[in-house]
Amino acid sequence: MEKVLNKIIENNINLTKEGKVADYIPALKKANPNNIGICIVDLEGNTYKSGDCNVKFTIQSISKVITLMLAVMDNGESYVFERVGYEGTDEPFNTLYKLDLPHIRKPANPMINAGAIMTTSLVKGGHGERFNRILELVRKVSNNPNISYNEEVYLSEKATGDKNRALANIMKARGMLEGDVEEILDDYFKQCSIEVDAVDLANIGSFLAQGCKGLESYGNVTREKLTSILLGIMTTCGMYNFSSEYIVEVGIPSKSGVGGGIMGAVPSKLGIGVYSPALDENGNSKAGYGMMKDLAKELNLKLF
Amino acid sequence: MEKVLNKIIENNINLTKEGKVADYIPALKKANPNNIGICIVDLEGNTYKSGDCNVKFTIQSISKVITLMLAVMDNGESYVFERVGYEGTDEPFNTLYKLDLPHIRKPANPMINAGAIMTTSLVKGGHGERFNRILELVRKVSNNPNISYNEEVYLSEKATGDKNRALANIMKARGMLEGDVEEILDDYFKQCSIEVDAVDLANIGSFLAQGCKGLESYGNVTREKLTSILLGIMTTCGMYNFSSEYIVEVGIPSKSGVGGGIMGAVPSKLGIGVYSPALDENGNSKAGYGMMKDLAKELNLKLF
Amino acid sequence: MEKVLNKIIENNINLTKEGKVADYIPALKKANPNNIGICIVDLEGNTYKSGDCNVKFTIQSISKVITLMLAVMDNGESYVFERVGYEGTDEPFNTLYKLDLPHIRKPANPMINAGAIMTTSLVKGGHGERFNRILELVRKVSNNPNISYNEEVYLSEKATGDKNRALANIMKARGMLEGDVEEILDDYFKQCSIEVDAVDLANIGSFLAQGCKGLESYGNVTREKLTSILLGIMTTCGMYNFSSEYIVEVGIPSKSGVGGGIMGAVPSKLGIGVYSPALDENGNSKAGYGMMKDLAKELNLKLF
Amino acid sequence: MEKVLNKIIENNINLTKEGKVADYIPALKKANPNNIGICIVDLEGNTYKSGDCNVKFTIQSISKVITLMLAVMDNGESYVFERVGYEGTDEPFNTLYKLDLPHIRKPANPMINAGAIMTTSLVKGGHGERFNRILELVRKVSNNPNISYNEEVYLSEKATGDKNRALANIMKARGMLEGDVEEILDDYFKQCSIEVDAVDLANIGSFLAQGCKGLESYGNVTREKLTSILLGIMTTCGMYNFSSEYIVEVGIPSKSGVGGGIMGAVPSKLGIGVYSPALDENGNSKAGYGMMKDLAKELNLKLF
Repeated sequence: MEKVLNKIIENNINLTKEGKVADYIPALKKANPNNIGICIVDLEGNTYKSGDCNVKFTIQSISKVITLMLAVMDNGESYVFERVGYEGTDEPFNTLYKLDLPHIRKPANPMINAGAIMTTSLVKGGHGERFNRILELVRKVSNNPNISYNEEVYLSEKATGDKNRALANIMKARGMLEGDVEEILDDYFKQCSIEVDAVDLANIGSFLAQGCKGLESYGNVTREKLTSILLGIMTTCGMYNFSSEYIVEVGIPSKSGVGGGIMGAVPSKLGIGVYSPALDENGNSKAGYGMMKDLAKELNLKLF
Repeated sequence: MEKVLNKIIENNINLTKEGKVADYIPALKKANPNNIGICIVDLEGNTYKSGDCNVKFTIQSISKVITLMLAVMDNGESYVFERVGYEGTDEPFNTLYKLDLPHIRKPANPMINAGAIMTTSLVKGGHGERFNRILELVRKVSNNPNISYNEEVYLSEKATGDKNRALANIMKARGMLEGDVEEILDDYFKQCSIEVDAVDLANIGSFLAQGCKGLESYGNVTREKLTSILLGIMTTCGMYNFSSEYIVEVGIPSKSGVGGGIMGAVPSKLGIGVYSPALDENGNSKAGYGMMKDLAKELNLKLF
Repeated sequence: MEKVLNKIIENNINLTKEGKVADYIPALKKANPNNIGICIVDLEGNTYKSGDCNVKFTIQSISKVITLMLAVMDNGESYVFERVGYEGTDEPFNTLYKLDLPHIRKPANPMINAGAIMTTSLVKGGHGERFNRILELVRKVSNNPNISYNEEVYLSEKATGDKNRALANIMKARGMLEGDVEEILDDYFKQCSIEVDAVDLANIGSFLAQGCKGLESYGNVTREKLTSILLGIMTTCGMYNFSSEYIVEVGIPSKSGVGGGIMGAVPSKLGIGVYSPALDENGNSKAGYGMMKDLAKELNLKLF
Repeated sequence: MEKVLNKIIENNINLTKEGKVADYIPALKKANPNNIGICIVDLEGNTYKSGDCNVKFTIQSISKVITLMLAVMDNGESYVFERVGYEGTDEPFNTLYKLDLPHIRKPANPMINAGAIMTTSLVKGGHGERFNRILELVRKVSNNPNISYNEEVYLSEKATGDKNRALANIMKARGMLEGDVEEILDDYFKQCSIEVDAVDLANIGSFLAQGCKGLESYGNVTREKLTSILLGIMTTCGMYNFSSEYIVEVGIPSKSGVGGGIMGAVPSKLGIGVYSPALDENGNSKAGYGMMKDLAKELNLKLF
């Protein structure tokens, strides 16, 4: 297996030179564009690694899967999806305009920013505690109790999050979002700043791949339903408006983040974490996408 | 197997009373709302049936899968997807407004009406021949050389297709669509009026499930890629803006039509055709959706 | 007065070289870009001319004022404005997208194409007769019984009117527009092809300036109200999304057409017709706009 | 004159019972719905009053005229209108969605909230000083040095201004708005909370009606141009998407505020201030609109 992974890294290392590290906040710009790593964790917990698997980066949008998970366990499926849509969208990750149209009553799905801010707000516990519970769940499903967040990235996100602030405020003005806008955003910015490495992502993927096995309690949802929700939404919305093309090309339910990570879950088989901070024009890791395509083919992991 | 199917029909027969037969054209209103049928065809060609499997109905939007197939074989993947998007959408099947926005250069995907009219226009052969080739391919992949179209439904669609006419004309005005608008629409209305039964749909599903095996030629695409495209797009766009919730609930790549049919393809396993003309508010067969959910659970067919 | 007009032509003749004759239909391209003319008709009927005042051109969108007039006389103010909005818009003349949004029930105003197609449909008489009555009214208010339409331009508009066809069909699909779409468009394309010269436009302006005096009957509206409606809507919508800047710069209720004409009405003072077929990027006559600005200043005609 | 005004109040007093006092912030709810007043100031400074002309209320959106005035004097016409549009709109006062569309580069006009927040940001002086200069100009043009703002209303607006916060943040995120969002909003909320009475409004109207005569300096614009800009934009945008119907019905350049005031300016004739806090569904003073209609007719003030 390690041989396969090494070869895949070799095949894609050139892509690290073509992409561009995210620069919308100063803290993200510090990432080393040459870093590249893959990790696979199978259902027995065997871990296969190649490349820079111990380099830490911020989880960014991959956290949205965990927040959705917690929001559903806290409130049940129907409560959550009355407040956030169940629909893939052809709009970009930070789309806002529909939230101003009278017939629209909720953000399209929990993977775009508006929907993710909504699911963060639905996590129980109030300001601060909300974030603590999200962090705790990330630690649990990645099997890594040492995970924490990057203060510098968090403060940067907070200082420059004008669009997210616009999203939260319009949802508040429309009566969609409950609670204090700045407090919700604070927890949201913190959750995006959680630091992980490729191994952590592979462990999260493996957790999902085995049907979310291993939690003491699933709250207001069954384990089976929770798995269908998370993998279903990763499939149709996980790569934003690129999701449809991605599922054709890669065929693995996945979620990416602008930190440079992609987390994949092959049902009943294994979890994947890839990392490379140079991004393509869609905001996905350029080499990461290349590695996912190769992995899917080499290991025969495509859904269809 | 037939026992399972019988039971599933029994469990869902009440739903036929809750839905409403499509009435936007007089010809569709004539369907018998009490009809209900399931058919399964496995990869060996074994056929399992229950209920009204020989009742004919119009294929409607399910034809979009075949047209996309032909357009891609005729022109190659990249040519087609430069003209129609690869993106699921949270807008309804007949959405138009984005086609008038300056930054939008193509319809979101080939399953919404705008995108389907586009793919019909991309099928080679010109007016009439375009339709003949679509019909021929439907016959081939359903293994039924007797399939034809319903003249009355076709004429009805043509007489009342104002929204489709608006869609084609705006794409023409924006320079997206090439060719004569009324000729393209004529072929499109005819393709929607092709008559099938549940067995035909199950055979189409089975063809897709076995990776599109059996054609003499695949034109400008490989068989593997064609399969990924069709099942991928059915997964993210096949039930319109309900696709994401559907993939969570049913977990089978599918395509529905307002004629009352749903066609499903379980990769490497089997094809499914269900029929019941009473529709829910999304325009999907009400009992059909119920039967798909039960089938997925009973036969363990969910992707995740 | 003629001296003033001569000087204004002199001052603006260079602008005829900067603009571009409309080329979206072949017939319009034949206009002579060097033509330039002004005509003023005061309330006593005195006519003052300078330049090419006898060159014929098609009235195009200026006809929308006459159609609105006839629709209101035929049906009354409230009937008409239940079907077309009373609202200026920041969208271009051929905007469509809002007509697809659920909360929108009518086109914004009778000066954009969608709204003008609607008012044409509201003119009584049915196909053909509708156009005849519009033409008759143009003849009456311009005091020129010889006005007719240009067959070549009409056929060109009809052959290339994809966007107008999209507008009419979506209004039909949404239940806004009643009647046969192609018949309504036929009358609409004909009305745009009516041929006038600068003198005719000045006479129309003069008719409006004196409060629409002189008709035998005003149907379902008072003469005073009709005048307020026409001048009010010319003020807020007559130059499309340029109306607001135009009213600041020129300060005269006006309506332009892509044929190169602008018609202006200074309440209780006089009517203006200017002509020059080279257009600016907004589709307004380039030298025409320049002449209107100069006229307003030289003759002290600004509303404010 | 006073007799006419008394009669107009009498005719419209019943409308005070049909409207509804603004309740989106608690402080506004305290207004007495029975209050009704008219004041007229002619160009010689003669003041005619009837009804509750000394009741104070917050100026709200009427302040947008003064802010636009100051922004243009500070920066010149072209600088301002490169940052805010010159276009009437069929969208409501707090419309946001277009600011998220890629082809839109600025808010439609300075009378909708987005545009007004923009013009506030363009007033020179920075946080606090910006507001002081706006207040100073209100005092000058209303000829009332005692005008101040209502602290309670200001704090209420600030606490509940979610939509305005969304507007400012999206303009910031799109690179339209420069400066600190919360500081700009702070000045904006304060400017809306300036307290005036009907006499003050009539004085402002009179100032505009006489071509903005009386300032020591007009900065980067001429007095004539400034007048055209303010009256032109009041005409096409002053009553939001109701502006076009209003100019037909009333025919006087005007600006309304949700505090219940309407300020009107009849060029070269007189200024008008009306007050009645009960609003119609468009957010305009119900009796205020009635009184403006009657005034225009009785005193023959309509533009056309």
